[in-house]
Order: sequence, then C-alpha cells, then structure tokens
Amino acid sequence: MSEKSRFDRIGELATRRGFFFPAAEIYPDASAGFWDYGPLGSALKRRIINVWRQMIVKRDGMLEIDGAQILPESVFEASGHLQSFADPLTECKKCRRILRADRLIQDKMGKLIPEALSTRELDNLIHAHDVNCPECGGELSEVAKFNLMFRFAAGPRMDSRVALRPETCQSIFLDFPRLYRIMRAKLPIGIAQVGKSFRNEISPRQGLVRLREFIQAEIEVFFNPKNVDDFQKFDRAAGKNVSFLLLEESEEQTLTAREAVDRKMVQNKLVAYYLVLLAEFYEKLGISPGKIRFRELPDEEKPFYAESAWDLEIKTSFGWLETVANHYRTDHDLKVHSEGSKADLSVIDGEEKVLPWVWEDSMGIDRTLLVVLDAAYTKEGKRTFLKLPNYLAPIQVAVFPLVDRDGLTEKARKIYDLLRSQFDAAFDEKDSIGRRYYRMDEIGVPFAVTIDYDTLRDDTVTIRERDSKKQIRIRTSEIEGWLKQRFTIGYSG
Amino acid sequence: MSEKSRFDRIGELATRRGFFFPAAEIYPDASAGFWDYGPLGSALKRRIINVWRQMIVKRDGMLEIDGAQILPESVFEASGHLQSFADPLTECKKCRRILRADRLIQDKMGKLIPEALSTRELDNLIHAHDVNCPECGGELSEVAKFNLMFRFAAGPRMDSRVALRPETCQSIFLDFPRLYRIMRAKLPIGIAQVGKSFRNEISPRQGLVRLREFIQAEIEVFFNPKNVDDFQKFDRAAGKNVSFLLLEESEEQTLTAREAVDRKMVQNKLVAYYLVLLAEFYEKLGISPGKIRFRELPDEEKPFYAESAWDLEIKTSFGWLETVANHYRTDHDLKVHSEGSKADLSVIDGEEKVLPWVWEDSMGIDRTLLVVLDAAYTKEGKRTFLKLPNYLAPIQVAVFPLVDRDGLTEKARKIYDLLRSQFDAAFDEKDSIGRRYYRMDEIGVPFAVTIDYDTLRDDTVTIRERDSKKQIRIRTSEIEGWLKQRFTIGYSG
Repeated sequence: MSEKSRFDRIGELATRRGFFFPAAEIYPDASAGFWDYGPLGSALKRRIINVWRQMIVKRDGMLEIDGAQILPESVFEASGHLQSFADPLTECKKCRRILRADRLIQDKMGKLIPEALSTRELDNLIHAHDVNCPECGGELSEVAKFNLMFRFAAGPRMDSRVALRPETCQSIFLDFPRLYRIMRAKLPIGIAQVGKSFRNEISPRQGLVRLREFIQAEIEVFFNPKNVDDFQKFDRAAGKNVSFLLLEESEEQTLTAREAVDRKMVQNKLVAYYLVLLAEFYEKLGISPGKIRFRELPDEEKPFYAESAWDLEIKTSFGWLETVANHYRTDHDLKVHSEGSKADLSVIDGEEKVLPWVWEDSMGIDRTLLVVLDAAYTKEGKRTFLKLPNYLAPIQVAVFPLVDRDGLTEKARKIYDLLRSQFDAAFDEKDSIGRRYYRMDEIGVPFAVTIDYDTLRDDTVTIRERDSKKQIRIRTSEIEGWLKQRFTIGYSG
Repeated sequence: MSEKSRFDRIGELATRRGFFFPAAEIYPDASAGFWDYGPLGSALKRRIINVWRQMIVKRDGMLEIDGAQILPESVFEASGHLQSFADPLTECKKCRRILRADRLIQDKMGKLIPEALSTRELDNLIHAHDVNCPECGGELSEVAKFNLMFRFAAGPRMDSRVALRPETCQSIFLDFPRLYRIMRAKLPIGIAQVGKSFRNEISPRQGLVRLREFIQAEIEVFFNPKNVDDFQKFDRAAGKNVSFLLLEESEEQTLTAREAVDRKMVQNKLVAYYLVLLAEFYEKLGISPGKIRFRELPDEEKPFYAESAWDLEIKTSFGWLETVANHYRTDHDLKVHSEGSKADLSVIDGEEKVLPWVWEDSMGIDRTLLVVLDAAYTKEGKRTFLKLPNYLAPIQVAVFPLVDRDGLTEKARKIYDLLRSQFDAAFDEKDSIGRRYYRMDEIGVPFAVTIDYDTLRDDTVTIRERDSKKQIRIRTSEIEGWLKQRFTIGYSG
C-alpha cells in the first residue's frame, strides 16, 4: 500500500460503506470527537460485545449491569475525579493553540514525568527546559488544570450537581454490596458493564482512537486479597502463552501464565487468569497472538490508586494501540465510596467481614472495533476484503440471482426471504456477479449464495466462500443447516 | 392482591432480585429519575431489544444506526428543541413547591389546553380560574418556561455548545441522506436507533415510568407522500385486528387494518402497516391483544409538526400506559435540518427529487420492560411467578442437584457447565427443591433441570416447566436439543 496509509484506507472504507462517520456531519459547527455508527458498524460493534459477553462475562460467571450514565457529583468527589481527573493545559501566547503542558515537557525532556505534578511544578519545568509552542515557537502561558468531565445541573431548580460518567466502573462499585447480597455471590466475583462514557478530551484524534463519547466494556473483579493465590480457575489458563513487555525492556517476552506467576512477573494467579481471558478474547476477534502484548506501566503512567497496571496493546498497521487498561486497584474504590456515602461496603466472605480488593479490565470498544477492522483488512491484487471471523461479520450471507431475468430474481428472493429470518442477509441483483462479490467482500460478508439456471432445474445453488473464493454446490434445502454451523463462537472451559 | 398494589409488588420484586434499582442509591444526594439495571434487568432489556430488532427492524428491512448522544446545539436550534422543548413551571409562593402550570390549569378547568400557550396566557388562565397550589393552597408565582434539555459546553475553551439528545431521532434525520446513498436504499425506508435519551423532567415518578435518563427505540420511516398507498407490504398486515380509541370516543373499536384504512380512520396503508408491526411486537412480548390500543391524540396533545399522532397504550394493573408515541411528521424534520445545516437533504426516488416525509414510532424501552413485568407477574396461591415468554427469560434454565451429597452436586455441575456455554443458566444447590423452584419462578426461569439418584443410574434428569409445573424425564444427552427448540422467537412474513 503506497500513498495512502492502511489506516486512512480503512477510515475511507468505513465512511463510504457506513461503518462509522462523524456525528452531525452536515452541521459545520459539529464538535470533534463524536461519531455515529452506521448499519454495518453498529452490527459489528454488537457482535464484538457479544463475543466479549460470551468469552469473558458468561464464561467467567460474572454479573452484568447497565447503570445510569449521569451520576451525582458526590460520587466523583469521592472517587477523586472532581479534583484530579484533569489535564494540565497551556496556551501559546502567539498562535493561541491550546496544548497539553505535560506532553510538551516530556517531548522536550525525552522522558516521562509523574502524573501528579502541580501546575507550579509544570510551570517551573517549562521555564527550566525552555519549552515553547511546537507549532510556532511562541511563549507558553501559565499551566492550568482542565477537568475532563462534562458537568451540569439537574432538577427544576438546577440545584442537583451531576456529571456524565468518565468511566463505567463507578456504578459497579456503588452497586456491588447490593449485587453481592441479592445474587448470593461469593468472592471472587466479577461485575461487568458495557456502555457509553464521556470525556472532554482536549484534542480528539484519529477517528475512533480518542473520542469525547466512547463505549467502554469494564470489568471489576472483587476479591479477598488473602485468597488471591487459592484460585482454581487459574489451572485452565496456566498453560496459555502470553506476551509481556516489562518495565525498562524493549522486547516482549512470551511465556506461559504459570511461568509469569512463578517468576512473579504478575502479581498473582488471579491477575494472570484475567490477562489470559483478555488475550483469548482478542484472539477470538481475529487478532493473531503475536500481535497481543501486555505492557507493564511505569509509576509515571500508573493511576495513583493502582498497585500495578498493565496495558493490553494490539499491534496495528499504525503502531501498538492500547485497547484495555488493567489495574490492580487494591481496596481504594470501596474505601473512598464507603467514606463518601457513609455506607458500609464491606461484605461477608466465609466467616470474615472484608472490604474487597479490585482487579479492573477497562476495555475500549471503539478502539477494539478499529483493531478488528485493521486486522481483517486484506488486499489481494485488486481485491479488497475484510477477513472477519464469521461470527463478527455484520452481514452473514448475500443472495444473488446470476442475472436479473428468467425468474432467477424471483427464485433468489424466495431463498433470501427464507434466510433473512435467521441470518443477517443481503440481496443484490445489480451489476455483474464480479462487482457484487467485490461489494460483499469489502464489508466482510463470508458467504454468497448464487441462484442460476441450474437452480431452476435441480434446486441447487452455489455458495462462494469469501476468503478462499472457493465455490461449492448444495441443495437449497441444505443452505440453512450449512450456514448455521458456521456462526458459533465456541470455546471450552 | 390486597394492601400493596401489584405495581408496588413488582417494584419490590425488581429491587430485591436485581432487575432495577435507583442509581447511586448509597449516596443520599442521588438525583431522582436515574436507575441502574441489575443482572436480570439488563438481560431482560437486551432480550426485549432483540425481539424489537427481529420483529420490527429486521423483519421490515430497516437500517439500524447507533449515533452520538451528545450533539451540537445547532441541531436542536433547527429542530426547535432549544426554543420550545420546555415545560411551563410555577412555584408556590408559600410551600415553595415547583409545579407544572399547564397541568394545574387543566386539572382546575377539567379540560386540555393547547401545548403552545405563552407564559402570559398561562398566567392569565391561572388568575381567571383561581388556580392555587394543590398541596397548600398557596398563591402561584409567574409562569416560566423551563427547557428540559441538559446543555453544556465541550472543547478546551468550553466554546462548543452541545446538548444531550432528548430523543434519539435527530441523528437519524441527519444521517439519512448518507445512509440512503451508501446503502442503495429505496423509499420507503425505515431507519432505527435504540439508545439513551435524556430529559431534565420536573418530577420523575413511579420508578421506570418517567425518567431523566431513559432508553428509546425509535424508528423513522422515510417515504414519498405521493406513493403512500402504493404499499405492497400492507397486504400481509391487512387482515390483522387492531384496537383504536378515536378522538371523542370513550371505547375502543377493534377492526382490521384494512377496515381502518378503508374508513379513513388512519391516514393511509403505510401508517396502518407500521401500527400492525408494533401491535405484533407487543403481542410477542406476552401482552394480550385486548390490552393493546392506539389512542388518537387531540390537537392539544399533538406536537405541532405532526399531522396525526397515535399513542400505543398498554393496559396495565395501574391503568393505560403510553409506551410508543407515533407521529405522522410530514417533511418537517428534513426541512428544518436542510435550513439549519444548509445541506440539501432531498434524495432521488425513481426519477424524482424528493424531500421525504416521515412516519415515526418512538418507543420507550424502560416502560416496555415495566409492562412486560406487569403482564408476566402471576400469583397462584402462595406461588409467585413471572410468566415470561421463553425468549424473554433472563435466565433460561436452572440446574439443581436434588440434594447436596452422594455425588449429585458434581454430576449437576457437569450438566450445568455443558448448558451454560449455550444458554443463560443458573446453578443452585442450597435449600429444599421447593424453595429453589420458588426462587427461579419468581424471576421467570422457564425450565429447571433436577439431577437425582436415578440420574446416577440411568443418566436421565427431570425437567420441570415453570407455568404448568409439569415434569418430564429425559436423557441428559437430550437436554440441549430439547431446550434449543424452545427459545426461538419465530415469525412469518
């Protein structure tokens, strides 16, 4: 691929075929960082979430909730977001650009600086290292912290201070004691939530990579820190190979989950097990194991409450991209919400009263969709196709009459009507068969059924397979059964 | 049912078993009108949406999108929400309650008043009819319009004015021309969207009935008004019985869709067809046809842009409840957004350039979930069960060892592990079988598989059916197949 990058080609395909495109694009004042999913994109997103639900949530026996996106500010006061979920900004006095002060300093110094520096400390670093506007060389203004939450008021008196959640996890913490009780749960127990989160990002970029409104799939595993290596489930995962990029190392090491635990590279069996679950999930999405790694975060990148943190990164055509942030959060969350709400959030574990610790997997669904498209995008000569696993394909089967005459279209319509009640099916009778294959290949339709003159004679059809372009001939009565077997996700353990 | 109303009992069951409960409930300052769905509620909601997708969206060949929830204010300036999506409020000068002026006046006058009255006109009516505070008799303050949208700013300079969408439909209108082109659509074409909407309701009430954050499933059907009775699809629906409550009538009339068109009770075949689709959807959810009606709205209740409007109402234990608002919107929406955005939103229909008209079905998913629970809630002596259609049950099958000894639990676990990869399954070994049945009945689990001593001998199990309490005995190898057949939604046409 020459002039255009693969990333640009995927973005172009996504917009042209309706996977995703900017929200309110017909309005010139539409704000950046908001996107709409079209028919193919919303179907693909649903299927990715479905695989997440099957491969992680259900498989592990987690509970799933769907909570309010608007929460009282007191929740974010307790969680610390009100005080510290902020970026340090500076403005160029000459060109008036707004810039991230910490990033500019890091770029100039060639190393990471701690997240928690005060605006005063950042100002000092700017002066000490002569940091200027990277665009025009202008002088920078004093640094100010800019909170990333969208905050507003509710109620007829506008006196109820609320905010759009910047992450889905807070309601998991708040609902935990109720769920633990009513679902008769035992520790460790995972609670999952998928839904929208919102951040007023300074510079939304690269399509779905950094958004102001995005979809998270978060999991909080509550556990008793005393029993963290008494963890049966680990056995299934122990032999699985995982790649780690450790602190201060420049190359990944691939070893089994058991080796990673034995060498104390990861905290304990529980952590290793959930990392394996995530890796297996991305493999199910069609990402090859060699393109999945866990990067250990240095203190400068770690949230203050996390005892350890691993980013799951996927190797894409545009570099390694973080798709899941994983944090070993200790009892931080339940403690701050106990204090904030004055409610006792501890639970009974066996004979013991305990304030559980939390392991978190925080997944970006939009980014995940992007890496799925990047992995699936395939060029073979003039042919472009999305090599999606069958169970991810937004459209599962296409039905074509060979030509639009002699009753073939009517016959094809009948078969289409039969299939579309069970599968996501498309019908296309326009243009040559070749062009129709091309259109379906480009959006990843795995199977195309063609009705031809033989169909009228002997009731058989051709099924053409997307990746191999192989064609087989089967009876019309067998199509349903043949297709059905080809869309199961399937996992063991 | 005596002291407690059925509505209260359902609310109590929902909270106790984790269908839904107030968001951030541990925080004393949590704002009213925000709810979380727990594991059972979020599963039930997903299944309802799935039936909507099967029975309406897919069946009709609609396109589905998932758009941003935050949109630029200019969109709502064009749509009219910025100016007129407001409730007229008044405050009692004595007890300081905030009240809806229009409702107080209507209650006092005993009749509807037009929606579009100015604050001046409302003040005059309050004086003319001596309207006072219904709680304390106090004098009322001057009426002020209170906009129901949550509005705030985005971007690092906070200069991009945005709002949370008060309905999902606006992005459907904005995306329509792109979708029509790239999906090679023909008129009429339905575009659907399910997702959150937000309104700063004055007085959120009755659990899920009036929320500040709620889930809508909206459909906008774009059509050429010239061809509105040249509508093939109608034939399938023509014979279906539908109940209408016409203006100024106090009783419903039940007649076929064809009769409703012939007698000009509904605008045209297109409208009649989509009303039938909705009725069939609610029947699939377990609502009996006699409890579904379409109420014609008088001018006072109709949005100004709607040429006609029908509320789909469901008869519940707490009265008729609107669950879908249906509007014949003319070309209003595409016209105002053409003007607002300066983009040409007309499309080519055959040989003609046309600005399509719109038929809208605007469904509340939270209310729909509530009417589903209300219809399913059944008392038979001491037994309480949710008589949900199988395909709606959050948990599809329960697995019990008869007693927790002699290897029955281990055998039952094996069967559970087999089933849970394909079904939503629960395992329960605590307490007597009777109590376990009770717990599963209460949340609508349709089938319970019991492993007993015979299972160890001949590898058969008992399956007990929720509604009839009938038990059958089958081989363990047959359970999967037996269950599989029982969860298809199924429809024709």
